Formats: sequence, structure tokens, C-alpha cells
Amino acid sequence: MSEPTRVLIWNEYRHERERQEVRDIYPDGIHGQIAGGIASDDLDIRTATLDEPEQGLSEEVLDWADVVVWWAHLAHLEVEEEIVQRVHQRVLSGMGFVALHSTHDSKIFKRLLGTSCSLKWREANEAEILWNLQPSHPICRGIGERIELDHEEMYGERFDVPEPEELLFLSWFQGGEVFRSGCTWRRGHGRIVYFRPGHETHPTYYNESVLRVIGNAVRWAKRTMNLPTECTNPDPVRSIT
Amino acid sequence: MSEPTRVLIWNEYRHERERQEVRDIYPDGIHGQIAGGIASDDLDIRTATLDEPEQGLSEEVLDWADVVVWWAHLAHLEVEEEIVQRVHQRVLSGMGFVALHSTHDSKIFKRLLGTSCSLKWREANEAEILWNLQPSHPICRGIGERIELDHEEMYGERFDVPEPEELLFLSWFQGGEVFRSGCTWRRGHGRIVYFRPGHETHPTYYNESVLRVIGNAVRWAKRTMNLPTECTNPDPVRSIT
Amino acid sequence: MSEPTRVLIWNEYRHERERQEVRDIYPDGIHGQIAGGIASDDLDIRTATLDEPEQGLSEEVLDWADVVVWWAHLAHLEVEEEIVQRVHQRVLSGMGFVALHSTHDSKIFKRLLGTSCSLKWREANEAEILWNLQPSHPICRGIGERIELDHEEMYGERFDVPEPEELLFLSWFQGGEVFRSGCTWRRGHGRIVYFRPGHETHPTYYNESVLRVIGNAVRWAKRTMNLPTECTNPDPVRSIT
Amino acid sequence: MSEPTRVLIWNEYRHERERQEVRDIYPDGIHGQIAGGIASDDLDIRTATLDEPEQGLSEEVLDWADVVVWWAHLAHLEVEEEIVQRVHQRVLSGMGFVALHSTHDSKIFKRLLGTSCSLKWREANEAEILWNLQPSHPICRGIGERIELDHEEMYGERFDVPEPEELLFLSWFQGGEVFRSGCTWRRGHGRIVYFRPGHETHPTYYNESVLRVIGNAVRWAKRTMNLPTECTNPDPVRSIT
Repeated sequence: MSEPTRVLIWNEYRHERERQEVRDIYPDGIHGQIAGGIASDDLDIRTATLDEPEQGLSEEVLDWADVVVWWAHLAHLEVEEEIVQRVHQRVLSGMGFVALHSTHDSKIFKRLLGTSCSLKWREANEAEILWNLQPSHPICRGIGERIELDHEEMYGERFDVPEPEELLFLSWFQGGEVFRSGCTWRRGHGRIVYFRPGHETHPTYYNESVLRVIGNAVRWAKRTMNLPTECTNPDPVRSIT
Repeated sequence: MSEPTRVLIWNEYRHERERQEVRDIYPDGIHGQIAGGIASDDLDIRTATLDEPEQGLSEEVLDWADVVVWWAHLAHLEVEEEIVQRVHQRVLSGMGFVALHSTHDSKIFKRLLGTSCSLKWREANEAEILWNLQPSHPICRGIGERIELDHEEMYGERFDVPEPEELLFLSWFQGGEVFRSGCTWRRGHGRIVYFRPGHETHPTYYNESVLRVIGNAVRWAKRTMNLPTECTNPDPVRSIT
Repeated sequence: MSEPTRVLIWNEYRHERERQEVRDIYPDGIHGQIAGGIASDDLDIRTATLDEPEQGLSEEVLDWADVVVWWAHLAHLEVEEEIVQRVHQRVLSGMGFVALHSTHDSKIFKRLLGTSCSLKWREANEAEILWNLQPSHPICRGIGERIELDHEEMYGERFDVPEPEELLFLSWFQGGEVFRSGCTWRRGHGRIVYFRPGHETHPTYYNESVLRVIGNAVRWAKRTMNLPTECTNPDPVRSIT
Repeated sequence: MSEPTRVLIWNEYRHERERQEVRDIYPDGIHGQIAGGIASDDLDIRTATLDEPEQGLSEEVLDWADVVVWWAHLAHLEVEEEIVQRVHQRVLSGMGFVALHSTHDSKIFKRLLGTSCSLKWREANEAEILWNLQPSHPICRGIGERIELDHEEMYGERFDVPEPEELLFLSWFQGGEVFRSGCTWRRGHGRIVYFRPGHETHPTYYNESVLRVIGNAVRWAKRTMNLPTECTNPDPVRSIT
């Protein structure tokens, strides 16, 4: 059997410690819930959080990881520039990156995509329907035609991201907005997935389809090689004279 | 008649002052040669250089510009982070950006694209042929099937950039390499063009076809609107209850 | 002043002649309403319909046209193969093609895109909101954040088209579906726009924003050159020996 | 262990029977050489040729196949329209399609892509270098920086295809041309690969790297699901009243 995929689930882990209503939903943190929810023999899963040494993202753990899942919201600005660059370099050399929900506004996501990644938002406990546009894509496997969530935060267009290379999910919101909720891009040798759902006040990461998309995404985005991205100065292949 | 397009040609302007062989080719600087070479009634052109106050890129001049043309090589690391952010924000709000030659390794280009933008290179005075892949694209208008340059620096693949949205030119080099020499991307509301030729030791910016591509590119990439990219929190369009 | 853009608006023109409720809305046909609605000094507009000689698409009129706007629904299968090929070749050589609403299922649209172009649909007079994703794109110019239509036919994903090169509008429907309602692709030297709204039983083509999008689209997609697409067998550029 | 991938290698098989110089290189036909060259435990390989019943492409064999590899040159026009439609439908429902060399001009390839797929060509036994642009892509795995072929037919740009979704290989030719030699697109639920090398008068399909790319491509493009592409008329998900 092939080696398991090494998955690092990184969570800001502030909401869960600071607000009882969030802790009630995610007593082990969002990272803990996702780690349990996608557990499988072919995945070797670790978790890390912002308030750990080196913000949970040492060179060692990043050398280990094939793919990082990221959830953050309140403390984007606390992530140190050096850590951002460290993760950025790993993605360019082939590590996968799965950005969940409010990670849209993180330094690392914006660094990878080059845009503001801004959007409209509203907390109104409204219904969301995610339509599966690419049922034959590995990330959408096992998901039916749609995922319905009774209560979620609304994210609305215009989502300021580069045109996705693959658009996998589109969301409908009760209040009238739409959103590109599942997107992929490549940067360097790394693969990036954005998946929208998961506001901290809703039990979204208990939804089986949401967990399946995340599990599919880590398998799709995982590192397959470790390639350099430096400039080189070679001799000609063919004689110039 | 409509307003002329406001073009800022920014040049590092170090090679020309430091090396006689470069000054012989570009006595007015690369910026001066390009400014003269693309001059036209529908363009209002200014130039700026790295060693001017605010590195030539004040808020005022950037508010003025519809599009910036950028040439740099030696001193990428001297461009201040604040200036990089200033230009980045302008591009996201709609200003065009035309990156020439060694600008591939500038902070601002890498910030916009999110990758290392690394490549292979060789200074061997070898022949380059640029093939025009999209003769009906506005940037390629008036260029025939190909542009031939007798002596240029070689740039070779793998060019570590996100997949171009439009691939306009492909280069052949005498020594055996190939390169994606004309590419476009969109970031935020801004349009980005990369155009490869123009090593400082060759008179490439006197070539009529090369000048025509740059002139076409500024017209294609110019700002058409000034749009914000901030997150907003709107009321529902449709009643949620 | 430059030459006006030559626009051919082609309509199946069956619903309007066969059903009173449609004729009441479009007494001059959908083609007549659009022609009047986008009239402008910079556009030279003609109309044509299926039941005219050569199905309204003679070599002469296609040689004349810079861009064709197409509306059809009932009679897709009546369009002759020769006519489909004639239009196809014109698009590949540079003529623009703007496909409206049920044109998604026409032979020519499927021929250009290579897919089934299938979708979900429902006639339930429900509300539609079209969100403008690219306000700085020429096709979206002058359209605000969104277009609201009180009653339209629903089109829902999965829309079986190649990933759009530019996704301009996303629709929200009252019944829970979403749709990629404004899309562009390039084929050969031609530019293709798909724009969703316009069911024959609704006065959609009287909406100022809908008309503006169509007017913008013909200007964006119009032919700029007439280029061949044949294989050629050239001598080497560089000596091979 | 998972089921082997079912690969159908389809060859026109005329050159090999009609010209001694081709038969000397490919005594078992190009299909036979590729079948042997990519043989592996995880692939279940069949071959078929144009002059067999139903042109080698019965409903049964297409129902069986997860992916088709296609080589053709002289007899594109002999492939019956019904067969083209049969293959087209299979690709849209999820079957992979790997187009080799002169298949660029086949009916099925042009039907899938929607363009003329024209190009420049020259038979001059010149050297070709294929540069690997995406070493971390599954199709490029195990291929180094480049593939060198001492003698091949030249194919040159402009290759009239829709912008590739992934550009994997770029070719350099001794005579001065370049070519997008490895490309992928998606159509419906199917994945399409174009790979350039393989003129019938050269022993290209004995090259280990060329065979490896073809083997990688069939594994990447293989069917993963069998999905319909028909229009459907569903009830609303959400109450409209």
C-alpha cells in the first residue's frame, strides 16, 4: 500500500476558546472536529493552532506535511510575515493548500492568489444551497447534485479572486446572493482549493457532505513532488555557433 | 475625441548610468527610448525612475496613471515594501501593469501573480524568434506572423507563473530553449501583460514590432474604472423570513 | 470616425407568429425589439429570421456581419448543416457570436463549444437576480451590482459548457437554483458570448440593463480581422543543415 | 487492488500497410507498438483499426473503454459521422480521449474542441526538443526537464485550438518553429489530452519518454464516472410562492 497522505489541519482556535456558543459546537476546536471527521486509513492527520510555538508552523511540520487545511478569522494579522513566507514557499514547491471559509482574508491566501479576496458577507442564519458543477471531479466525488445547509453565514459576489481554473461549487443564499464556493488554482507546483462553508457559530463541519469535500480536497491537493523554483543559468542544448 | 491614456513608464535606470555599453545603446535610458518609441496622440506619457523621490511612484503619479510599464533588473530588492503595496492596490482597483523582460523577478510582479516567476536564462547573444499566437488579439495587432531578434538574452521554461489567461507570444531560441514571451492575466480590476524581450545590452527597444507590442499593450491594459475591493456587509436583497 | 460595427440579429421568429401571448410582448419579433433597443450611431444593424431564403444566413450577409446575435428555441433542428458550417467558419475567421437564452441548445453553439450545453430549466415565473462579477469588463460596463428580473424562466446548473474563459454574470433564482448567465469563450479568431435571460413569454428584452449588456457584447465580440485557419507547409525560418 | 483501466488504442492503420518504410518501423502497426510499449498490470489494453467492422468502434467496445488513444492521418474523412457522434457522446459522459500527432485534424478532435485545429507542418527530419512545463503534473511524471527527438516532422504555431486548460509541453524545432505539444482540455465529463510527437516515418513510439507520457495520459484521462448530459426540468428546491 502506498504511504498515507500527511495532512496538517491548522486552526486559529480563538473563537472556540473565547465564546461559549462556539465552544458548545466545537468542544475540540474546528481543527479537532475536521480531523475526526475526515479520519481514514490513507490519511495521517496532525493538527496545529496559532498560539502554539512558531504559530504551529515550524519548518519541521511543514517539511512533513503533504497538504495543509487552514481555518482562520479573527487573527489573520497576527500571523507573522516569516510564517506566511514559509508556507508560501512550501506551496510553490508542491505542498497542497485547502482554504476554508474566512481563510479568504488570510495573508497566505491573498499572497498565493495576488488579489484582495474581498467579498460580501452577512450573518443572518440563512439557508445555503451548494450546487455541484463538476460531479466527475475528484473533489466532488460522492457528493450528489447539491449540499443543503439550513443555516450559514452568507458570502456574496463579487469575490475578488483570479478566475478559478476549475469552478466546482456555486452557492445560492436565501437572501438573494450567489457565491463561487468551490474553486481550484495552481501556484508553482502546488494545488490550492477554496471551499466556502464553515462559519464558527454553525455545526457545518458535522455535515457529512462538507466533510467529504474536505477529505476529497486533501487527497487531490497533496504534494506529489518536491520541486525547486529557482532561476538557473544553463549551457545551450544546441550549439549556438 | 476621448481622453488620452495616461502611461507611466518606470525604469530602474541603473545599468544605463553605470555601464558605458548600455548607455551607448540607451543614452536617454530604456524609459526614454520606450517613451519616444510609442509616442502617439492618444497617449499621455510620463517617465519615472527608482532613484527619484518616493522611488518615482508617489500617490499622485499613481492616481494619475491608467497604466504602468515597468523595467527593472539589478535593484528589485531596493523597491520598498510600501511602494510595492501602493502599486499593488492600484492594479487591483483597475490600473494596468505591463511588465517587461527582467521585471519577471520584481517584487510587484511576484506579488500580483503569487508565484516565484523563476526561469532559465543565458547571456549568449543568440537569436530569438517570437511567434504570434493570437494575431486577432489587440496586443498583437499589426505584428505579422513573428518577430525576429538577432541577438537577445535567452529566457527558458519552466517559467513559474500561473497558467496565462491568454498566451500571445512563444519564443524560440537558437540554443534550444522556448519561452512563453507574451502573457496576460487579470488581478482584481486590473490587467497585467508580460512581454519578454529587452535585455539592456541589446537595442531591442528600437525594434518597431517590439515597440508596437508595448504600445498595443498599454492601450489594452489601461484602467477603465476605479473600483474598490473592500468587503461589505449588505442587507438581504430578498426577505429571509 | 471609425466604421460602425455591423450587427446581424438572427431570430428563429416562430413563437411570436404562433402564440398570441408572445406576439403581444414582441409584436416586431424578439429581433425587432433588440434591434430597436440597442440602436446607436456606432452600430449598423440588420435582422434576419429562419424562414427567409437560405434561412436568413446567406454568404453575403455573413460576409457583411462583424457579429451575429442569435435567438432560437423551437426549431434548432431545422437549421441546416450547411448553414451551421457557414456560420462556424465565419466565427473561426473572426466574426463575433452572441448567444441568447435558449440558443444554448442550438447546433451552432454546441458546435463552437464542443459540449452538450445541457442544463436544468423550469417555467415558473420566478424571480431572477443576475450578479455582475466583472464590473470593469467591457461587457458589464454601465451595469450596476446586479440586474433584477421579476419573472423569468429558470435555468439551473450543471450547465454543460467548457469552463468559461471569463465568467461575467451569475444568476440566483427564487426556487433555489444558480446559473452561469454571462460567459465568454474564444474559438479560432472569434469571440463568443453567452447571455442567459430572455424567455419569450417575459418582456425581458425591454429591460434597459439587459439591452445594455447585449449592446456591450456586440461591441466586444465584433470581428477585428479576417484571418484564415488553414494548415500551411512553410520553409524553415532557420537553416536546418 | 482496483480494477485495471480499460484502454482502447485506435489506429487508422493505413500507412503501415501501404508503405514499406513505415512497415519497417512499425511492423505491428503504430497501435501495436504503443500497446506493447505502455503495457502494465494496471492497464487492460485493446486495439482497433479503421478497416474493422464499424470502423473498430462499436457501441460495445466504447461501452467497455475508459479511455481511447487515437492515431490517424490519411483517412480522417472516411470516419463516419455516426461513429464521430458515438465517440463524442462517450467523451461527454466521461470517457477520456488521448489525441496523438496528426489526430489534430480528425473529425472527432475538431468536434470536441470546436476549432479548425490547423497548424504549420514540414517534413524535414529535423530535431525536436519537448520542454516539460509542469513536472508535477501526473501526465509529466517521470519525464525529466525535456525530451529530445533527433528526427521528427515539424508542427508549428499558430495551432488553432481553444486556449489549453493546462499547457504541459512546448516544442522547439531546429528550423525555427515552436509548438504547444502537450495540452489538456475538459469537455462534458471527459478529459482530453493532445500529445504531438509520432510521425509515421520516425521510430518515435519506441522512445521511452514518449511512451511514458502516453501511459501517464491514459491514467489521467480515464473515465471515473458515467454521467448523463441531458436537460432536465426539476421542481423548485425552495418554495417559490
